Formats: sequence, C-alpha cells, structure tokens
Amino acid sequence: MKKKIEFRSQCPISTALDIFGDKWTLLVIRDLLFNGKRTYGEFLESEEKIATNILADRLSILEMAGIISKKKHPDSNAKILYNLTAKGIDLIPVLIEIIAWSEKYHDVHPYAKKFAKQLHKDKEKVVRQLFENFTKK
Amino acid sequence: MKKKIEFRSQCPISTALDIFGDKWTLLVIRDLLFNGKRTYGEFLESEEKIATNILADRLSILEMAGIISKKKHPDSNAKILYNLTAKGIDLIPVLIEIIAWSEKYHDVHPYAKKFAKQLHKDKEKVVRQLFENFTKK
Repeated sequence: MKKKIEFRSQCPISTALDIFGDKWTLLVIRDLLFNGKRTYGEFLESEEKIATNILADRLSILEMAGIISKKKHPDSNAKILYNLTAKGIDLIPVLIEIIAWSEKYHDVHPYAKKFAKQLHKDKEKVVRQLFENFTKK
Repeated sequence: MKKKIEFRSQCPISTALDIFGDKWTLLVIRDLLFNGKRTYGEFLESEEKIATNILADRLSILEMAGIISKKKHPDSNAKILYNLTAKGIDLIPVLIEIIAWSEKYHDVHPYAKKFAKQLHKDKEKVVRQLFENFTKK
C-alpha cells in the first residue's frame, strides 16, 4: 500500500489523476455520494465487484488525499464508517459532468437516463441539492 | 493492445472509467483541448512523460471509443494528426470541473491558478469559448 501520493506535475488534471486516475476510485465516491454507502462491506457489494485489496488500497489513498474521513460505526467497534470531507463533496460537479457525458454516448441504466433528464432540465439545481444533502450531515 | 472496450456495468460513471479511468488518457485529451497538440510526438513531449507503449494503447482506446479520430498529416504521410470528435469535445465540462476542483486543493502551476480565476468569474463563458474553438475547426 502506498505511503504517500506522488504528483507527476503541477497540472491540475494530472494532480487529480494521481489521486483518482483509475477504474475504481470514483466508483467509491459514487457510492458515497449517490448510493448512501458508507462501509467497506457496502462498497464491496456494488455491481462492478471491486476486489477487497483494491478497495482497501483506494480507501487508503482517498483518506491520504483528504477526500474521505473515517469514524467508528456506532453499532460495532469492528466496523468503520466512511464520510466524504469537504474536498470529497466538492467532487460532485466532476461526477455530474461525467454522468451527463457518459449518458449521452453510452448504453446506461434507465435510472441514469432519468437522472440525466433532470440534469438537462436544471443541472445547477441538481448540483445545489446534492451539496445541500451532504453539508447538512 | 485491447480489441474492444469491456463495460463492467451500465452505470454511466463506470462506463466512462472503462474508457478513461487511468492516469494518462485524460492527459492526452488535455493536450488536445488546451495545448494544441495533435501528433504522437507532441503527446510524448508533455511534462508527465508518458511512455510510448502506454500512449499507443491510450490512443487506440480513444479511437475505439469514438473520442478521437485520425487523419494523415499534410506535411508527411508517415505522420498522423489526431482530432477530437464531437464526443471528445463534449469532455470539455468534465475537464473544466476537474481543473476547478484540483486547483482549489492542490499546488498547481501559476497558469492553472490564472485559468481557475477565469472559471470563478464566469465558468459558462470559458466553457462556451472552448466549445466554439473546437467546433469551428
């Protein structure tokens, strides 16, 4: 497991990819943002079937990057609850634009098509509501 | 080299990551969008120093995904010019949001800070101008 994130350059896109440039990290953020998932076990259940070692690695990178934080689960000391930090919540517009782009060009779930319709109608409102949901918590 | 892109699910985020979920692909898009690069040799020169085999692989995936197209260089038959398709140009808002997020939280180049200031002032205008630049070509 990595000890620290190494940045290849000071390009903001490159820097972002040094953190989440892989097939899995943004899916964990997706699960936190849109699917109400907050535990290791819940992330493992997602349909893309992330492997346990990859999940552990990505959670550790996300924590190192200050995108998620963890606390003890109130029901069990053995369980951990993951939360998005302000830096993680600020990824909402990135994910929204990825969804809008991908829905336009790919065969996606009906619920994603429905969500994209809301985006076409009033993207700012959807983004604002998502931010409100997460800053209330 | 991959023959086709395999999609893990019909989630739009997962689908997008099946195409560009790595540390390099969006840097090639960045070079096409913001740095006026259009040839293999130009992509190799970028400061992150992409390896030739990775570059060839990513260009082939981008072409398969319909994000770039290629044509012969007018100066030399041995050279290829890469262009963004409409699907590639539609990635502008994704890259813009990544830049805005990354600039807020990371140590980035002065020119990226300056660009982020323009985004804070009028993001829609910057996005519109970028679209205009590319749809004129």
